[in-house]
Amino acid sequence: MNNFDFRNPTHILFGKGRIADLKDQVPAGAKVLIIYGGGSAERTGVLAQVHEALADHTLVEFGGIEPNPRFETALKAVELIGEEDITFLLAVGGGSVIDATKFIAAAALYDGDAWDILTLRGSVVTDAMPFGTVLTLPATGSEMNPASVITHAEKGAKLPFMSAHCYPVFSVLDPEVTYSLPPRQIANGVADAFVHIIEQYLTYPAAARVQDGFAETLLRTLIELGPKALETPKDYDIRANLMWTATLALNGLIGAGVPQDWASHMIGHEITALNDTDHARTLAVVLPSLMHDQRGPKREKLLQYAANVWDIREGSDDDRIDAAIKATRGFFEAMGIKTRLGDYDIAAPEIDRIVNALKDHGLTALGEHAAIAPDDARRILEAAL
Amino acid sequence: MNNFDFRNPTHILFGKGRIADLKDQVPAGAKVLIIYGGGSAERTGVLAQVHEALADHTLVEFGGIEPNPRFETALKAVELIGEEDITFLLAVGGGSVIDATKFIAAAALYDGDAWDILTLRGSVVTDAMPFGTVLTLPATGSEMNPASVITHAEKGAKLPFMSAHCYPVFSVLDPEVTYSLPPRQIANGVADAFVHIIEQYLTYPAAARVQDGFAETLLRTLIELGPKALETPKDYDIRANLMWTATLALNGLIGAGVPQDWASHMIGHEITALNDTDHARTLAVVLPSLMHDQRGPKREKLLQYAANVWDIREGSDDDRIDAAIKATRGFFEAMGIKTRLGDYDIAAPEIDRIVNALKDHGLTALGEHAAIAPDDARRILEAAL
Repeated sequence: MNNFDFRNPTHILFGKGRIADLKDQVPAGAKVLIIYGGGSAERTGVLAQVHEALADHTLVEFGGIEPNPRFETALKAVELIGEEDITFLLAVGGGSVIDATKFIAAAALYDGDAWDILTLRGSVVTDAMPFGTVLTLPATGSEMNPASVITHAEKGAKLPFMSAHCYPVFSVLDPEVTYSLPPRQIANGVADAFVHIIEQYLTYPAAARVQDGFAETLLRTLIELGPKALETPKDYDIRANLMWTATLALNGLIGAGVPQDWASHMIGHEITALNDTDHARTLAVVLPSLMHDQRGPKREKLLQYAANVWDIREGSDDDRIDAAIKATRGFFEAMGIKTRLGDYDIAAPEIDRIVNALKDHGLTALGEHAAIAPDDARRILEAAL
Repeated sequence: MNNFDFRNPTHILFGKGRIADLKDQVPAGAKVLIIYGGGSAERTGVLAQVHEALADHTLVEFGGIEPNPRFETALKAVELIGEEDITFLLAVGGGSVIDATKFIAAAALYDGDAWDILTLRGSVVTDAMPFGTVLTLPATGSEMNPASVITHAEKGAKLPFMSAHCYPVFSVLDPEVTYSLPPRQIANGVADAFVHIIEQYLTYPAAARVQDGFAETLLRTLIELGPKALETPKDYDIRANLMWTATLALNGLIGAGVPQDWASHMIGHEITALNDTDHARTLAVVLPSLMHDQRGPKREKLLQYAANVWDIREGSDDDRIDAAIKATRGFFEAMGIKTRLGDYDIAAPEIDRIVNALKDHGLTALGEHAAIAPDDARRILEAAL
């Protein structure tokens, strides 16, 4: 097991009716900025529940956070915070709204140009406003981690940052608020969480039985319950397990003390930049092809994955690896997520653009061995056509 | 899945050489009270490592915390804190030293009679001094939770308390410091962690796949690695997995959202009170007998335990349950821990005293259904003779 630091101070309030508990979590006397996205927080009644819970607080609203949250929009919220003397932020939404809120929380207390926070990946953040979240979409894990990704439309940049000051103070996870989500969002959320786990698990053995066993539990849970969540949208226990799984997939726990990959994410980001394909769908395209291509360096963990996640124990090593990759692809397809570039209208000539984008962004040594160069990414993408 | 709150702010510094990182964790300018137990912290060189790491801090030492840490001893430390203007506490030891430090941290800032903290189970604690820990013995999980048990020798009382103010700020977990532990302490630590997990897992199904899968991972890790840790004391990866397992066994994670039992602990405590048998050994006596006795209410989880922890899948329901109980007993015995009351010189007439002690302490409705009355405890103990 590698040395590691683990620290995660976010208070999780999980379960039915927990939005009502906001009244005890938001400091008394706080002036609260509620940050949300489009109209879904309103349509689903979540925003009304939040208002009811915080009836004794002074509330200001800021809507309109985009699916890939924008720098320019976040700065408008920062301006409003100054004008209204806001003292506490409350994100109501999915990963995008929470990511935006983290950036707003940091930018509101940052003296220089807020753009620094992104170009310097959070290293300049020395403080942030306190904020909580009400999660409406299980997927990104942002509700219990200190990371955020912000897009600058004019500059054509999508940049991550991270800061120990950007953990939510609390996050409310009520599985019932996910009942009304469109199937596409549930499927994307399951696929996103699945690949988060894989990026921290499917590398090379590090004698980390605990982390491996936890990762395998989370993967099996998604595999068993993901398709069922689409069939029976109002099954509480299915939604509860999916929601808690997506949070634990990226809260630092399973990645502590083990090597990490993240090549599928880096390559996938460039596909989204090219033609706006949903983030999770790019992952479902890249991952099976990357598993196939990287079966050498990943051999031991691929065999472990086949056995412990898919119960594939018969046949030669390569047979079992092939069967595990096929099962992975089948899982995404069963969730209604296509796994070929062609399914998203991306043909061979466009692979050049994706590979050049990786080079432009300095992403030339990806994966747990920092050994996936642009030519390797090209081969992986060609096999995904 | 039941509703739950999960919050655990302790910063874990895990791995080889991490004691050196104390210098960045203890606030600059702090006047530190190092709290430890007997001479083992000195003999093993851990105390010397701590002094070296904190060479630039002002240090005061307080040794002599007992294995069942005493109220009277803790109060002497509180007095010293006042005399020396101590601003930060550092526990160097196992669960007893850490438990004592939690109580000292709370008592030092408590205005009334410190005994209140114990009789009112921590509810009167509104603040505590900040403290960190350097863990030397994987077992109790105290390094990452807010609970403590303190003994008052004169009053013959052993009382737990808990407070959200009593999480360690940080805990250093270096598996190498466990190499020199006596086999008996390793075995006790493994058994203690094992039963901590069982108390949160072996109840009735609550549709909590994630928590169940995590608990099963931790149990399997202890079963596979516990005996090996005794055979090869200096295997880093074995010690690392055991250390992290014992911490995760009782940091709130696997118990979130599920029913909990704790009857084995309550009955076991009374055995320790009777004849000072090691805590872990009392658990190894009570648990197999309790599993046997409670096979009705626990049937579904016993079958799940048999299949997922012991890979017992053949035979009738009762056959599989019997095999799982036998395997559990065999695991304790393989660790050198006897599992019968007779092994600890406790005979039938003494069962009355144990049962009466449960009654005296108001422990008359134990277990996840609050249905284990003193007569049930008697039957469980008689079957453990």
